[in-house]
Amino acid sequence: MELLFLGTGAGVPAKQRNVSSLALELLQERGAVWLFDCGEATQHQILHTTVKPRRIEKIFITHLHGDHIYGLPGFLGSRSFQGGESLLTVYGPKGIKEFIEVTLAVSQTHLQYPLEIVEIEEESESGTIFEDETFSVEFGKLEHGILSYGYRVVEKDLPGSLDVQRLKELNIPPGPHYQQLKEGKEVVLKDGRLINGQEFVGEPKKGKVITVLGDTRKCMQSVQLAMHANVLVHEATFAAGDEELAYNYFHSTAKEAAEIAKTASAERLILSHISSRYQGDAVSRLAEGAKEIFPNTDIAEDLKRFTIS
Amino acid sequence: MELLFLGTGAGVPAKQRNVSSLALELLQERGAVWLFDCGEATQHQILHTTVKPRRIEKIFITHLHGDHIYGLPGFLGSRSFQGGESLLTVYGPKGIKEFIEVTLAVSQTHLQYPLEIVEIEEESESGTIFEDETFSVEFGKLEHGILSYGYRVVEKDLPGSLDVQRLKELNIPPGPHYQQLKEGKEVVLKDGRLINGQEFVGEPKKGKVITVLGDTRKCMQSVQLAMHANVLVHEATFAAGDEELAYNYFHSTAKEAAEIAKTASAERLILSHISSRYQGDAVSRLAEGAKEIFPNTDIAEDLKRFTIS
Ligand SMILES: [Zn+2]
Ligand SMILES: [Zn+2]
Repeated sequence: MELLFLGTGAGVPAKQRNVSSLALELLQERGAVWLFDCGEATQHQILHTTVKPRRIEKIFITHLHGDHIYGLPGFLGSRSFQGGESLLTVYGPKGIKEFIEVTLAVSQTHLQYPLEIVEIEEESESGTIFEDETFSVEFGKLEHGILSYGYRVVEKDLPGSLDVQRLKELNIPPGPHYQQLKEGKEVVLKDGRLINGQEFVGEPKKGKVITVLGDTRKCMQSVQLAMHANVLVHEATFAAGDEELAYNYFHSTAKEAAEIAKTASAERLILSHISSRYQGDAVSRLAEGAKEIFPNTDIAEDLKRFTIS
Repeated sequence: MELLFLGTGAGVPAKQRNVSSLALELLQERGAVWLFDCGEATQHQILHTTVKPRRIEKIFITHLHGDHIYGLPGFLGSRSFQGGESLLTVYGPKGIKEFIEVTLAVSQTHLQYPLEIVEIEEESESGTIFEDETFSVEFGKLEHGILSYGYRVVEKDLPGSLDVQRLKELNIPPGPHYQQLKEGKEVVLKDGRLINGQEFVGEPKKGKVITVLGDTRKCMQSVQLAMHANVLVHEATFAAGDEELAYNYFHSTAKEAAEIAKTASAERLILSHISSRYQGDAVSRLAEGAKEIFPNTDIAEDLKRFTIS
């Protein structure tokens, strides 16, 4: 599982940082990549990575500000042009459907793959927007003036692995009964021995939790979404000291993001949505301020990859 | 007057060539820049140039395919964010208004400058879409499956310059009467001499004609629009030999573009909208084929500038 930042800037593109987009690579887990937001030129950023547009299975939009959605029509069209045929699902606030449908219709873009658009019900403060056998995704409403959501991606616990080494030592040969043992069942061998699978299966492996928040003020919903997360991706549009400014503009400071991570007992914090006002040393200071409160903090950069292990 | 190519590719962005956009810099002529098409990441390309978004006065959209318009909402928003306050006018086919209005409304983008959107009447084959004291812009309907237009920018002839040197030699001192002389009028000096301005004014300077075409098959309308143009910018999505393919996909080959330039007696041809199928030597061959028919041919490249003198 890897997080690959495609755009880590705020508001308008700059040479150093493009507008928002983040890829969650789930190649081992489900042979797929999920995107969070799709600012203008996200498809251009992807050209500089190993991400295959046809592998992108889901796009979660946090909110409808232009710097988070203007790359969507181009990405959707190019995914089709480049031979993507599998279902793509876009999740987002009410309005995302109109945006996609009008932009594709006006430009007469006809996708060669099925596109599903799931709008979050405006009334819901939080809920589950997707669930299958291996993952679920929860959402929660943040505070950003415009409807803005955070997403909590929960990988389901993986069953413990079978201790094949010990089975072999006990002269229990491989065969279909290994699957039953792995499921913790009892098996009677040809030689009459009764083997209890539970004795040979290790602890279940805890699934990962990744929380990606849209633009927001410091708010309690963020804590909920980030509770015990392995990684929290939080915006840091302002530096510590500018809390009042951040509040007025419905954004957060790096310090506030660190406070959220700490309160939620998250493992790791990655700051993104960095204003182009901060360059070089100013970015380092942004990080330092946050680290005083939450030491395991990193600053995202365009095309920077974080392995989640 | 300069042409600065911002995106010269076809269909989808590639590392070498972004999707379509072209800046016509009229800094000396009117302190303004005009854009032709605005594909995704046009504002990103502008970051690598000296073009100031607030200087962009007019945007002419040739057609509504995504690779020609998906950069428009982002550009419009950023121009506002960066302090642009002057009127911006967008010209284009029917539908461009809906595209702009829906994308700005969904993203709650509130521009801090007046935006005027002028849609070309679908029924008109050709006409004049803009005219003031120094420029006019004509449009003509091309052949591209979807409504696609070519634009002919006509700079009005500049009055000849006053031969100040000769006036001084004749002891005619500078003053308000210089303006009258410049306009070709007769002036009576204090010393009683009658001076005829026409004898001191040089030949009017012919205004430039720049023709920028949208995607199109080879068609007669292109010849009309490019007649005696100083520069013709024509698409070349395919190479010579692929005429049938080009016809079927409503595009042109480099050779067909050269034939248009020749028939129209244009001065200079610049090929753009180059497919990423053509790289390196293949691009040179594209040019060679065109030059056999029309020697004064160039291939556009992203961020390449052509001075029109
Ligand atoms: Zn934002
Ligand atoms: Zn095109």
